[in-house]
Amino acid sequence: MTEQIGLRAPRKEDHRLLVGDGRFGADVRPSHTVHVRIVRSPIAHGVVRGVDTTEAKAVRGVVDVVTAADLPSDLRIPVRLDVGEADLSAYLQPVLAKETVRYVGEPLAAVVAESAYVAEDAAELVDIDIDERDVLLDVDDGPALVADTLRLGFGDVDAAFEAAAKVVSTDVSIGRHTAVPMEPRALTVDYSPATGALDVFGATKVPVFNRHVLADLLGIDQNAIRMHAVDAGGGFGVRGEFYPEDFLIPWLATRLRRPMAWVEDRAEHLVAVNHSREQRHRVEAAFDSDGRLLGLRADVRHDNGAYVRTHGVIVPELTLAMLPGPYRVPAYAGRVRVMLTNKTPCGTYRAPGRFEGTTAREQLFDKAAAELGVDRVELRRRNLLSPAELPHTRAMNTLGTDVVLDAGDYPGLLDRALAKVDDLEWRELVRGARAAGRRVGLGVSMFLEKSGLGPHDTADVEITSTGRIRVHSGGTSLGQGIETVLAQIVADEFGVDIDQVDVVNGDTLLQPYGTGSWASRSTVVAGSAVRGAGREVAARMRDLGARMLEVSPDDVEVTAAQVRVRGAAMNAVTFADVWRASQPGSTWLAADEPAGLYARHRFSVDHMTYPYGAHVCVAEIDPGTGGIEVLRYLVAYEVGRAVNPTLVEGQLRGGVAQGVGGALLERFSYDDAGQPQATTFMDYLMPTASEVPVVDLVVCEDAPATTNPLGVRGAGEGGLTGAGAAIASAVSDALDLPSIGELPITPGAVIGYVRQAASESGNRQ
Amino acid sequence: MTEQIGLRAPRKEDHRLLVGDGRFGADVRPSHTVHVRIVRSPIAHGVVRGVDTTEAKAVRGVVDVVTAADLPSDLRIPVRLDVGEADLSAYLQPVLAKETVRYVGEPLAAVVAESAYVAEDAAELVDIDIDERDVLLDVDDGPALVADTLRLGFGDVDAAFEAAAKVVSTDVSIGRHTAVPMEPRALTVDYSPATGALDVFGATKVPVFNRHVLADLLGIDQNAIRMHAVDAGGGFGVRGEFYPEDFLIPWLATRLRRPMAWVEDRAEHLVAVNHSREQRHRVEAAFDSDGRLLGLRADVRHDNGAYVRTHGVIVPELTLAMLPGPYRVPAYAGRVRVMLTNKTPCGTYRAPGRFEGTTAREQLFDKAAAELGVDRVELRRRNLLSPAELPHTRAMNTLGTDVVLDAGDYPGLLDRALAKVDDLEWRELVRGARAAGRRVGLGVSMFLEKSGLGPHDTADVEITSTGRIRVHSGGTSLGQGIETVLAQIVADEFGVDIDQVDVVNGDTLLQPYGTGSWASRSTVVAGSAVRGAGREVAARMRDLGARMLEVSPDDVEVTAAQVRVRGAAMNAVTFADVWRASQPGSTWLAADEPAGLYARHRFSVDHMTYPYGAHVCVAEIDPGTGGIEVLRYLVAYEVGRAVNPTLVEGQLRGGVAQGVGGALLERFSYDDAGQPQATTFMDYLMPTASEVPVVDLVVCEDAPATTNPLGVRGAGEGGLTGAGAAIASAVSDALDLPSIGELPITPGAVIGYVRQAASESGNRQ
Repeated sequence: MTEQIGLRAPRKEDHRLLVGDGRFGADVRPSHTVHVRIVRSPIAHGVVRGVDTTEAKAVRGVVDVVTAADLPSDLRIPVRLDVGEADLSAYLQPVLAKETVRYVGEPLAAVVAESAYVAEDAAELVDIDIDERDVLLDVDDGPALVADTLRLGFGDVDAAFEAAAKVVSTDVSIGRHTAVPMEPRALTVDYSPATGALDVFGATKVPVFNRHVLADLLGIDQNAIRMHAVDAGGGFGVRGEFYPEDFLIPWLATRLRRPMAWVEDRAEHLVAVNHSREQRHRVEAAFDSDGRLLGLRADVRHDNGAYVRTHGVIVPELTLAMLPGPYRVPAYAGRVRVMLTNKTPCGTYRAPGRFEGTTAREQLFDKAAAELGVDRVELRRRNLLSPAELPHTRAMNTLGTDVVLDAGDYPGLLDRALAKVDDLEWRELVRGARAAGRRVGLGVSMFLEKSGLGPHDTADVEITSTGRIRVHSGGTSLGQGIETVLAQIVADEFGVDIDQVDVVNGDTLLQPYGTGSWASRSTVVAGSAVRGAGREVAARMRDLGARMLEVSPDDVEVTAAQVRVRGAAMNAVTFADVWRASQPGSTWLAADEPAGLYARHRFSVDHMTYPYGAHVCVAEIDPGTGGIEVLRYLVAYEVGRAVNPTLVEGQLRGGVAQGVGGALLERFSYDDAGQPQATTFMDYLMPTASEVPVVDLVVCEDAPATTNPLGVRGAGEGGLTGAGAAIASAVSDALDLPSIGELPITPGAVIGYVRQAASESGNRQ
Repeated sequence: MTEQIGLRAPRKEDHRLLVGDGRFGADVRPSHTVHVRIVRSPIAHGVVRGVDTTEAKAVRGVVDVVTAADLPSDLRIPVRLDVGEADLSAYLQPVLAKETVRYVGEPLAAVVAESAYVAEDAAELVDIDIDERDVLLDVDDGPALVADTLRLGFGDVDAAFEAAAKVVSTDVSIGRHTAVPMEPRALTVDYSPATGALDVFGATKVPVFNRHVLADLLGIDQNAIRMHAVDAGGGFGVRGEFYPEDFLIPWLATRLRRPMAWVEDRAEHLVAVNHSREQRHRVEAAFDSDGRLLGLRADVRHDNGAYVRTHGVIVPELTLAMLPGPYRVPAYAGRVRVMLTNKTPCGTYRAPGRFEGTTAREQLFDKAAAELGVDRVELRRRNLLSPAELPHTRAMNTLGTDVVLDAGDYPGLLDRALAKVDDLEWRELVRGARAAGRRVGLGVSMFLEKSGLGPHDTADVEITSTGRIRVHSGGTSLGQGIETVLAQIVADEFGVDIDQVDVVNGDTLLQPYGTGSWASRSTVVAGSAVRGAGREVAARMRDLGARMLEVSPDDVEVTAAQVRVRGAAMNAVTFADVWRASQPGSTWLAADEPAGLYARHRFSVDHMTYPYGAHVCVAEIDPGTGGIEVLRYLVAYEVGRAVNPTLVEGQLRGGVAQGVGGALLERFSYDDAGQPQATTFMDYLMPTASEVPVVDLVVCEDAPATTNPLGVRGAGEGGLTGAGAAIASAVSDALDLPSIGELPITPGAVIGYVRQAASESGNRQ
């Protein structure tokens, strides 16, 4: 049997999705389902004088209209990832605003009606009386509320800067944008009148954790709630966190004792879902005379929007923790201030903190190269940690674990990326274009990622009556292909191909201990759990199969859906045979032996693993229009081991697409009153096939992770992490500027840079 | 904490049923559910020339019409309880008749439509062309097909009869009737297009077994089917067996890839559900000169209807196995011929084989008393096995286990029953009435029951986040109160009351190894499994709780929803505390220790246990109308231990009601062409509150069962087993006849008996 890990297996998910048999949140409709429409604040900041539901309630087909006054008092959505020491409780978001609204889009009321159309129409009739207050929209305008200040670092950074031959500094600002999955959020909740039990359809990301939160907020037993992950049209970090709607819809189902559905529309999504990324970075590097880093400083202002949501302060925390990247940094001091503004609250978006921090650091490197008069690549190479320096411990921790860069060859990966660039003759391309008068630049970024966050995940593996292998994993399917990946991992334990494996994810009844799919952890942590459970079941099958074959368990092997006597392929029992032998009443089963072929395995891990990579791109600017075209793109990424190379490549390409969006297009802008200006796709610019370049890939499996038995490093985010930095680098190269200070790089900004470059060039002349 | 076993706890089931929150099969309606109507044969026997569905298919709203030609070929519903050695495969029922129909009501086609009304109307348009054949409706008419002949016995019965001082024989015929639960059968099947998985709502009795059968017939994995037991308006043995509809509805859901529902109407129920009871018994007893039994012979003709259904030949088998009853029978020979007729096929109905055999044997005793000139009670007392003779092994086995009468005091129980009769002054009542010229009689029957059939059952017990106790049992809820009983059993393992326990039954996902609720086995076998699982979880809680309390597990106790240090009630952790400590990531949990507070326990048992009892009743006949009124009724029953005495009493009273029906009212009659004459409640006479007497009870707990740790003997059937015999005995006493030969005792028969008694009396004068 061919080993399944490493195969480019077509996705198990594809068939159902391609033939229209996928089941999304809005596909689940128990009979007598009613529909919810959220009434949201039209004002960015104000005191709520009244929310009058009289007229809305009178609409035919309206079942109920609720406001904060109807809710249990003082409901606040708790932080899931509590990393800091600060008390954030004062900043947590209520389910429905009661006395104060703090951003446009904040939920104020909910209308329940027999149809979604009636609910939406009636929602227009809810009369909201708000006394407007001043708004704060920019962390640099006036005294912003600082929810938390985090500091990370190691070494004597002041001494490093004092000893420096050269200090370079720059300011890098990242625009507010977020994940905009194809499918907005959707929830359906079925209610059992007999037991009060809730079935929640639409869970993603962290269903077990969210069940816990929901049970606490409702004051019911966790066992009364079953979260069902369904197909999801993309997650990217924003879908599946616990939002106000995640309480409201189940609570309304309980209140009205009937099935309840809610589907977010696009305009809602753009103001309701977690925003991300908006940070201003002041970064400084101290170099010795050879261009070697002596120290690094970062001071970050994080615009968190109106409330602290489930992520708490993890994005700013990760920004600091990961900012030193793959480099040899003897001393480091980072500070981030988490500031509240009257905008949509923020959370994680794919590569949280790393997209931002990598852009800032790599722009700093580009600027330093210019100021030191060293080639951009050479400056990086000089400062990358060498294989001999790994494992490398940074004396600071993040997400509760030390930063221990486990293994790898950072310069080697850079060499491979550049060798590929040479093969593709991109330097010649740039030279030729420039010679022809075009404004073309080559950009490079190096980055470090993190993945495989523990501390644990649990998986169940079971053999079924026809000898199929069933996996109940704690991961969730967000489009990343986790069903296929887990099937490949477990298939190898049984010597079968993945067609014989069924994977069910994100069902809290089937897997009550799952930790979810986030932080590029599923392949690493859930995958290792699945492998462990599969191995235990295979051992059980060897034991029972050997009994049936009347040989020692040591003399049999599990392969090709059989338990066989080694070297005697005809002397075998099928998985289905062994399954029958494992059932209660079977004569093969001892009196005190558990029935079935089943194991639950918990995989625990103390340390993350750190993938790393390089992005290289070629971009051209149009000095007349300010337009930017990304002409070529390369991602080189070390993943330890690619369980399914096609899926790794898909992850990387999708990441680049989002990176292009963040670097060039996507931004939530607001007017002076805090009214969001980007609430449709006419104003919020998503990259399309025209803007996304062909992406060349170098997927490396040269440095297997040492912290998990599969050797895998999560591959979910590396396509995005270095993209802002590489594109900015290419644009600055095209502009002949040392660096770029702000993403997204809009046409207006490009025209400004062109003028600045012309003026600097004029000054130099 | 009060011990819960033995309490008259109100049923946990009642609240949801009383407030209308029960969920029955027809309450489950996924969106886009379509409805099935079965087209049934209007002819009792014939060759199918054609089933033309053209016109039905053309009806607006009809989705599909299928006949046998559309089904996989040669589908036969297998026997669940295969006790004989005969090959019954030729007599198994097909799902839809193809070439031959063999009873009125046999399924021929199925119509699927958008509503049940459209389906029913369209079903009328299916054009059935059947070439009629001769019918066989009576096992004594012509050469009936004998599907199987079973023989059981022990000892030298011929020698016994040769040595007899007196041989008594009689013929007893039991009429065809069956269970008519308040709720007819109902099935809803939800279908998952993405996985092909089926959720079947409406399972009762044996969901795990039926899942197995359904998976085999559909050719899919058992794991693709989840059977959900729902509330059921009575079972009594007929509901929950695998019928043609149990294949058809799921198969149609798979064929049409959408949810499918079917609800049986009453007219269907009366021709489609298993019939039962119809047997003719020739019984003979050999007595010595002291009226002591030397031997017993039984020759039984069992009218099985048109096919052998899931029960195979178990009713005739049980008739033979249990016919010797609680008596000392030195030699026994029984034969039963299972004969096929053109009537609805038969199966088990509460007290299968025992109602019939007990009636026959006890009528034989009544007749023998008359012929021997011994008092009816005295003759029984003389022949009952004494406590000293137990355990008593009969050298024959049934249901795969030896007949070992475990323990008890049969004469003592009879004494207690009669003492109660004396207390109630029933003899005086009878004497007084007779003195007043009324035709009143006293009837007595003794009987032996069986319960606790193994070989095993499995239960899961789990502690939930708020410290509740959750049970997933293999039993199913049929109205008998099993949720309450299992809650009482498990509550005592944790020192809580039953409000803290949730019991879920009959869900094959939650409990894949359940053996079901039948043969009065649930309290005995499922109850013992629940007790075992509860005990394991309590031990685990002691272990973890002791760790938290920093004492030895030996020093703590589990009680009142706490793990406490013995003798230090303040030094305790709650169940919810221990639950939290058991979760992954808890510092109390060792790395290799399974998370959660959970155990699955399999209880195995080799031998049944045998409850026993006596029925006494007073009945009056109206010689003018032939009417019979049951004036007084007493059941004395030894149950070993009554987990909930109120539920035991309810079981006994309900059994008597059905016994009154079988003895006096209920009969499926047919015309000469095999057309059923009792297809509504106008013709099929169910006992009502007017016919069912007040029932006095003597529930004995004097002889705990030795074959299970609870000491319980199932109490589900004893209210019915002796009822036919006792009522016949009372009627024969009122008539001054030695015995009655046929049940139900109709008014016409009574008038005939009155004339016969008058004539015999005339002859004697």
